[in-house]
Amino acid sequence: VPRFYKKREENRGLAPGSLVFIGEKKTEALRVRLFEYDDQTLAEETLHEVGRVRGLTDTDTIKWINVDGLHDTEAIREIGEEFGLHPLLLEDVLNTGQRPKLEEFEDTLFVVVKMLRYDEAAEMIIAEQLSIVVGPSFVLTFQEQPGDVFEPVRERLRNRKGRIRASGSDYLAYALLDSVVDNYIYIIGRIGEEVEELEGEVLESVDPELIAEIGRLKREMSFLRKAVRPAREAILKLSKLDSDLIQDNTSPFLKDLLDISSQAAEAIETYREMLSDELNIYNSAMSHRMNDIMKVLTIFAAIFIPLTFIAGIYGTNFEYLPELHYRYGYFVLWGVMIGVAAAMLYFFKKKGWF
Amino acid sequence: VPRFYKKREENRGLAPGSLVFIGEKKTEALRVRLFEYDDQTLAEETLHEVGRVRGLTDTDTIKWINVDGLHDTEAIREIGEEFGLHPLLLEDVLNTGQRPKLEEFEDTLFVVVKMLRYDEAAEMIIAEQLSIVVGPSFVLTFQEQPGDVFEPVRERLRNRKGRIRASGSDYLAYALLDSVVDNYIYIIGRIGEEVEELEGEVLESVDPELIAEIGRLKREMSFLRKAVRPAREAILKLSKLDSDLIQDNTSPFLKDLLDISSQAAEAIETYREMLSDELNIYNSAMSHRMNDIMKVLTIFAAIFIPLTFIAGIYGTNFEYLPELHYRYGYFVLWGVMIGVAAAMLYFFKKKGWF
Amino acid sequence: VPRFYKKREENRGLAPGSLVFIGEKKTEALRVRLFEYDDQTLAEETLHEVGRVRGLTDTDTIKWINVDGLHDTEAIREIGEEFGLHPLLLEDVLNTGQRPKLEEFEDTLFVVVKMLRYDEAAEMIIAEQLSIVVGPSFVLTFQEQPGDVFEPVRERLRNRKGRIRASGSDYLAYALLDSVVDNYIYIIGRIGEEVEELEGEVLESVDPELIAEIGRLKREMSFLRKAVRPAREAILKLSKLDSDLIQDNTSPFLKDLLDISSQAAEAIETYREMLSDELNIYNSAMSHRMNDIMKVLTIFAAIFIPLTFIAGIYGTNFEYLPELHYRYGYFVLWGVMIGVAAAMLYFFKKKGWF
Amino acid sequence: VPRFYKKREENRGLAPGSLVFIGEKKTEALRVRLFEYDDQTLAEETLHEVGRVRGLTDTDTIKWINVDGLHDTEAIREIGEEFGLHPLLLEDVLNTGQRPKLEEFEDTLFVVVKMLRYDEAAEMIIAEQLSIVVGPSFVLTFQEQPGDVFEPVRERLRNRKGRIRASGSDYLAYALLDSVVDNYIYIIGRIGEEVEELEGEVLESVDPELIAEIGRLKREMSFLRKAVRPAREAILKLSKLDSDLIQDNTSPFLKDLLDISSQAAEAIETYREMLSDELNIYNSAMSHRMNDIMKVLTIFAAIFIPLTFIAGIYGTNFEYLPELHYRYGYFVLWGVMIGVAAAMLYFFKKKGWF
Amino acid sequence: VPRFYKKREENRGLAPGSLVFIGEKKTEALRVRLFEYDDQTLAEETLHEVGRVRGLTDTDTIKWINVDGLHDTEAIREIGEEFGLHPLLLEDVLNTGQRPKLEEFEDTLFVVVKMLRYDEAAEMIIAEQLSIVVGPSFVLTFQEQPGDVFEPVRERLRNRKGRIRASGSDYLAYALLDSVVDNYIYIIGRIGEEVEELEGEVLESVDPELIAEIGRLKREMSFLRKAVRPAREAILKLSKLDSDLIQDNTSPFLKDLLDISSQAAEAIETYREMLSDELNIYNSAMSHRMNDIMKVLTIFAAIFIPLTFIAGIYGTNFEYLPELHYRYGYFVLWGVMIGVAAAMLYFFKKKGWF
Repeated sequence: VPRFYKKREENRGLAPGSLVFIGEKKTEALRVRLFEYDDQTLAEETLHEVGRVRGLTDTDTIKWINVDGLHDTEAIREIGEEFGLHPLLLEDVLNTGQRPKLEEFEDTLFVVVKMLRYDEAAEMIIAEQLSIVVGPSFVLTFQEQPGDVFEPVRERLRNRKGRIRASGSDYLAYALLDSVVDNYIYIIGRIGEEVEELEGEVLESVDPELIAEIGRLKREMSFLRKAVRPAREAILKLSKLDSDLIQDNTSPFLKDLLDISSQAAEAIETYREMLSDELNIYNSAMSHRMNDIMKVLTIFAAIFIPLTFIAGIYGTNFEYLPELHYRYGYFVLWGVMIGVAAAMLYFFKKKGWF
Repeated sequence: VPRFYKKREENRGLAPGSLVFIGEKKTEALRVRLFEYDDQTLAEETLHEVGRVRGLTDTDTIKWINVDGLHDTEAIREIGEEFGLHPLLLEDVLNTGQRPKLEEFEDTLFVVVKMLRYDEAAEMIIAEQLSIVVGPSFVLTFQEQPGDVFEPVRERLRNRKGRIRASGSDYLAYALLDSVVDNYIYIIGRIGEEVEELEGEVLESVDPELIAEIGRLKREMSFLRKAVRPAREAILKLSKLDSDLIQDNTSPFLKDLLDISSQAAEAIETYREMLSDELNIYNSAMSHRMNDIMKVLTIFAAIFIPLTFIAGIYGTNFEYLPELHYRYGYFVLWGVMIGVAAAMLYFFKKKGWF
Repeated sequence: VPRFYKKREENRGLAPGSLVFIGEKKTEALRVRLFEYDDQTLAEETLHEVGRVRGLTDTDTIKWINVDGLHDTEAIREIGEEFGLHPLLLEDVLNTGQRPKLEEFEDTLFVVVKMLRYDEAAEMIIAEQLSIVVGPSFVLTFQEQPGDVFEPVRERLRNRKGRIRASGSDYLAYALLDSVVDNYIYIIGRIGEEVEELEGEVLESVDPELIAEIGRLKREMSFLRKAVRPAREAILKLSKLDSDLIQDNTSPFLKDLLDISSQAAEAIETYREMLSDELNIYNSAMSHRMNDIMKVLTIFAAIFIPLTFIAGIYGTNFEYLPELHYRYGYFVLWGVMIGVAAAMLYFFKKKGWF
Repeated sequence: VPRFYKKREENRGLAPGSLVFIGEKKTEALRVRLFEYDDQTLAEETLHEVGRVRGLTDTDTIKWINVDGLHDTEAIREIGEEFGLHPLLLEDVLNTGQRPKLEEFEDTLFVVVKMLRYDEAAEMIIAEQLSIVVGPSFVLTFQEQPGDVFEPVRERLRNRKGRIRASGSDYLAYALLDSVVDNYIYIIGRIGEEVEELEGEVLESVDPELIAEIGRLKREMSFLRKAVRPAREAILKLSKLDSDLIQDNTSPFLKDLLDISSQAAEAIETYREMLSDELNIYNSAMSHRMNDIMKVLTIFAAIFIPLTFIAGIYGTNFEYLPELHYRYGYFVLWGVMIGVAAAMLYFFKKKGWF
Repeated sequence: VPRFYKKREENRGLAPGSLVFIGEKKTEALRVRLFEYDDQTLAEETLHEVGRVRGLTDTDTIKWINVDGLHDTEAIREIGEEFGLHPLLLEDVLNTGQRPKLEEFEDTLFVVVKMLRYDEAAEMIIAEQLSIVVGPSFVLTFQEQPGDVFEPVRERLRNRKGRIRASGSDYLAYALLDSVVDNYIYIIGRIGEEVEELEGEVLESVDPELIAEIGRLKREMSFLRKAVRPAREAILKLSKLDSDLIQDNTSPFLKDLLDISSQAAEAIETYREMLSDELNIYNSAMSHRMNDIMKVLTIFAAIFIPLTFIAGIYGTNFEYLPELHYRYGYFVLWGVMIGVAAAMLYFFKKKGWF
């Protein structure tokens, strides 16, 4: 399965705004979780029927509706109608290959980001598209799979920790994005550690696995960059947005979030550069070893091949070969050989080969 | 035939605005297809005479005139006159080596893009220039060869699916561009799959075909980029255009289109980087194998060349060579040889060569 | 002679505005060609005296004065005075190492570009500086050598083809620039063909000439870029210029010219990238061949060196060497040798070396 | 420990604005140093209780409160409350993995930079986060470890040197930042010297340590860049800031500081390029040596292997081998061998191998 | 001594605006040369006392005061006071490691550039900092060493050549900068010639000196860029400056100067690219030669090692070795050997190795 970009075979040629889900088809019902709260009250509920979202927009309390699963396009459409969402927005929610972005609709903001989680057991990154719709008194979040990074936000809602219960939907959306970006930082740090560990190894190791490892980490970083860079752009746009939906006292929090995502984007670039440097240094070290190997070969060959030749001469069976009959011929032979070998060694020594 | 840029020998030095077709000359008539529609009615017709386009501009219905073939410059001029097109515009329609662009004329918009189709049978990309002229109540599309990516748009027109029949010429133009960009994404995905598949192979394979493959994919990506990047620019300009021709409710669709083409441009860059990384890793892996080969050679040479030399010594025919006459000379020889070989092996072991 | 940038030794330290010609000194008279025309009349003349330009500014007809040769600085100064040109402008005309640029003076526009021609016979590019001065009713063009790319413009003037005779000096200047840029495209295409042809060769060829060829093409592209990129900037500036000298209906033509020069600049970048890729692929292919060569060597050496050693053992002349006296010693020897060789082959096979 | 980016495991999922210190936990009290001064008076004091900062904001004198240690989050909160600092600001003070930045709060400016010191004894760079809060009549500086680069500023305060005592809090903040940036320049210079020293060595040395050294210096430069580049951005923002806190006559000093930090950022880029060039040249030099080694091997092998073969021929024990019985066979053999060797040498000479 | 960036050890921690000279300390008096002129009069004088500058600001004539030597900080301060210069300006004059820049003070402009001269005898570049202060009726220039590039300007002043005597201080400053930039172009051309000469050599030469040469030229270009790029920025700023000090008719000259410095900056980039290409091509050519060397080795080894082995077989002393006793054994041996050799040659031929 291509990991980087999908072909979008399914919705080539469809009318824009057509609701088509491009992921795995399933039959189970969507899981919809509702948090309804204001400073004083909090209701937490799992809705078993999408129809239950009706009428929610009428109250002043903040509603967070978290939808897990996108395969039931009919249910998604129903939610969309209830909250007055633009067809293109809904299409983007279902099309999980979106580039992260911020879009402003008439009375809603629409943010798409990649939600990354690090599965500590499997030692892999789990990525999926998170769509956030922010309205005056509600926040909708859509994702394909159950499992998210929002547990700390839920805890803060339940425990009335921080300013979240006293703030509006914009702060809730910020808190969710903050959780997402915190996980970017964490994952970049995890992979970055592996990058930094490689540094010590590239000079010594002769393990070809190292090249594979560098390649793998480069791809991980490309993958992360694909999630982080446009998310940073979206957050930048959000922090500069002049919209009624964003209250004044949320602004410093968005700027803080922008700082963190800038840092994430920068960290990825730094690690990518480090990986390139590591590959270069690995190659240099390998060339160096190659030189060493060739020196050993050349020294052995250059010393013993001439000697073997000399011995070969006196191994010929010529009838008339005067040296063979000298009393000390054999010893002279050794002398000559040692002389030749010493001369060769001196030559290589002078060339600085050892 | 140069694939990337044409020399434009034919129209070097012609007066600007001269209508010269630079492609293959043919004699058959152009194929002109007309869709005339409003929310209630739809007429689909193939015009056998260019003269039939006369008077079409007078009605309020939306007209989509799709011209296949550019070799009949006289007919093109006739259409241009009927719709009041600028001579430079017509020149660009005929000159199929245009860089994708958006141009604003007095009461028309002119968009040039490359229309790419993937021929599944031949496994190749078919590219040609598509010129779109958008007027208040008409859309003209010009292309050199029959065959396009607009069948889904035609289906939607026929079936009154989506908002297309109820919208103006700007939405039709958008729908056509959307089809074009959808095919970009599809083709990038196809080629991207090949890029991603190579990843696993570069470390193991010793097949020189792999280098050729990387080279080929790089060129494909360069070719795609040449089509996609300026198309993205044109769409960006279109989405920011302040023109009477673009209605307010078409705007979100154009922004959506811009997102998709940004994603396409980004995907190309990512794949290009991946290909560069793959070549680097292939080279590293090859150096690594080279080191291995040289180690094998050196170990064999360094062990057996000295041994052969020693054997050579005792193969000489010196009359007086004392060792030959010792009772256990031969066995001592073996002992010495095994000792030398063991010493060498120890030396290489210590150097970490195996 | 340095081809890329001149040292400007001659005019180091001169007063700005001093007229010094830095090219080859000659004694022959300048060749001045005059086209004087309006929609109805056309006079074409070769002036044998520079003094003849006097009084030309007084009429309403469009005058195109084309000066071949810059060595007679006195004559150039005379022309400059007649048309009221700024001393710095004249200095730039004579200093043929200018960077292409557009400058706005009080009532003239000054454009400097490189005029490139492809000499089909010599298969080389001929480059020289072209200075264009545009006034309300005149265009002056200065160049060092006879021979230019303007013959098609002259033809159009003579034949009243296109709108050139009915337009002003701005359109004439555009037409001249258009001819220049058309030749850029043509030359880039010619060299680009060579670049594209190399693509197929880099993988197979072992000819070191290929590296030289890639190097040469890279330099050609650098040279072209040095001409095209600043020319594009100048044309961009020209197309955005708010000047009385540029009439409204010339604007679309300038935009078209900008498109073509953008395309030229882009083509150069694409070809430069292709050349880099080709060098990389050539290097990879060469490494690959190296690996092949080393494998052959290592296989031969690793098989036959041990065998030769074994044969050497039994070539020794030890008095007591039991194996020599066995009845089947020789055949056992062959058996052992074949066994060793087979084992080695199996080892290399398993390593995937052939 | 990852040196480049921290994972921020501790505060993943916390409410924004939560005060969590991510460094080493300690129990000792914070060290708070107070300078209170105006043009006439100066009081220098070490506060043993954080509570002593109360009421300091009421006077018109300039107060510089320097806090060493961040582990006592309660004390930090107390200071924050006294000076009316935003919770996000305090969170950033404690989170020492911040990206350098400038933030504007209602009546304070908040600057975060990395304070780098070169420990001459240990030959290493000591880095820590410095947070500067600038108010109308106070400057707060926070850092984790004791030891800073501000001694010269303190001296100038004590000795009334320069304009510092007569200026406001903005000038004090500038003076502190100036000290920080001065140390950037100094450290870049130190490491840069090592980079420049390597230049002479890369061509001659065969020491693999050199690769390690280049790798190490590249990482140092990446590390410095991570501190300097965003600091430069912050200073740029500061120098362009339109704030009541910055007095007019401090402006030239900030511009000067910007110049110096631009120079620092540029120096880092130059040194990084130099390191890349050095690695390239080292690799080229190594390839060159490899060629030399292979030439020696090939010359020896190509001369002596054929000779040994010839000798081997006449070492065979064929009963009928005519040459062996010629009177001068042995001498002819030598003649042939010398001829072969001379021919080989001539061949290699002609190839330019020595 | 580090050539690229100085550590600034001496003034780390000093109060900003402190006058500290960081160069070589000397005791001799500064050399101050004064040109006082207007259109009619010219006085040229060497001042032996700094005090003589007093009162110079009162007259309307243009004063050019050129100070050689910066070691006497007291004298510099005196000059500064007389002309009302800002302490930071004076600090920058003395600190000769400044980045080239333009600064605007109340009634003066301050330009810092590197003045480069090519010493033809020593074949080296002499670089030093030139500080130019432009006031309404004076220009101050400060440099550390005697010797400059201004002799042509002085000549023009003495001979009333060009418009310099009739113009103001702004034109004088321009003329000085023009001299500086002219020398940039000249020096870049000189070094560029060496770069272009290398082009022909990289393919053929095997001299390792070539790598050293490429490295040296790259560093020269880095050094030049460090001077030229910020100088270009300063000139750009100057040409766009809206200041009373710059008269309208000086503007075209500044634009011209900007063009020349842009060309200088561009030339440096082109030469840097050419050097990188040259190194790449040198490396490719070296790989190519390596392949050739290895082919020779492999062909020799693969042909003669098996033959030697065969000869070795028949050199064994087995009692029972039937082939030795055949009448034509020896000739059959030769036949087999020639066959093997021919087969090998055919094999290598087919592989395209020669």
